[in-house]
Amino acid sequence: MKYSLFAAFALAALFNLGCQEKASTNATDGEIQAIFPKGEQGPAENFTGKAWNYGLVENDTIHNTVVGNVYFEPGARSNWHTHPAGQILIITDGEGFHQIKGQPRQTIKKGDVVKCPPNVMHWHGASPTKGLQQLYIVPNTEKGIVQWLQPVSEEEYSN
Amino acid sequence: MKYSLFAAFALAALFNLGCQEKASTNATDGEIQAIFPKGEQGPAENFTGKAWNYGLVENDTIHNTVVGNVYFEPGARSNWHTHPAGQILIITDGEGFHQIKGQPRQTIKKGDVVKCPPNVMHWHGASPTKGLQQLYIVPNTEKGIVQWLQPVSEEEYSN
Repeated sequence: MKYSLFAAFALAALFNLGCQEKASTNATDGEIQAIFPKGEQGPAENFTGKAWNYGLVENDTIHNTVVGNVYFEPGARSNWHTHPAGQILIITDGEGFHQIKGQPRQTIKKGDVVKCPPNVMHWHGASPTKGLQQLYIVPNTEKGIVQWLQPVSEEEYSN
Repeated sequence: MKYSLFAAFALAALFNLGCQEKASTNATDGEIQAIFPKGEQGPAENFTGKAWNYGLVENDTIHNTVVGNVYFEPGARSNWHTHPAGQILIITDGEGFHQIKGQPRQTIKKGDVVKCPPNVMHWHGASPTKGLQQLYIVPNTEKGIVQWLQPVSEEEYSN
């Protein structure tokens, strides 16, 4: 019976391992389904915590649009910043926050879309316990792309 | 020994079932990971087979950008069409094709990005055996959004 139990758990472990390997092929975080490579870590002068950027569409004078994927680890967020022609965020997995200066912090999650108007201060990032995966779209780049400002304080992040 | 083998396979089956249930939570198609609702079926005058469109960003005069998600069932594709300011496709799951008129058909899959120039005839859709999930970004919509043309023939689709 000892052997049979061992065999049972060994087989179960084998199946489960196969499962975990399959599940983790596309996962960066247990919960997050990665579509793109993780990319480069965002610089500490523009981000609190670890945020990973993978560029998808480089700027050109034909489409005038920049697109990329950011994965924010739990607790990570951007500094406050503005976009001269605004920004669109498409949340593809996880959970986090978006805030426009002077407005309440907004909870965002998989499937949500955020439109931030031109020249308005905002920040975005992950929740304290779950990561956030998002696409950013910067339109009309002939007007400029981004202007980075001060970090989001712990108090601002928590409210 | 019969009992121990049964126990082993029963346990293995249990673990494996748990894995399959978890994996299918976000799946529309066995293979495709759905981020957004399936949306509305694209009209037969613009699509061959079943393509499902879910609008994410409506046109406005601030961002001048339209974004949406399309899931093409296996074998489904758009008609030939043009965009006055071009288009960007972000492939988020599955496998399919993109073709610019006069160029070879290009295979596209999860993680790929396609930039189609302004006023160039193109089509996109799923492979015959796998569905395709893609985001479309139409920039500079003040120039127009889309002009629909003739269906993609079986011969064009298969080459």
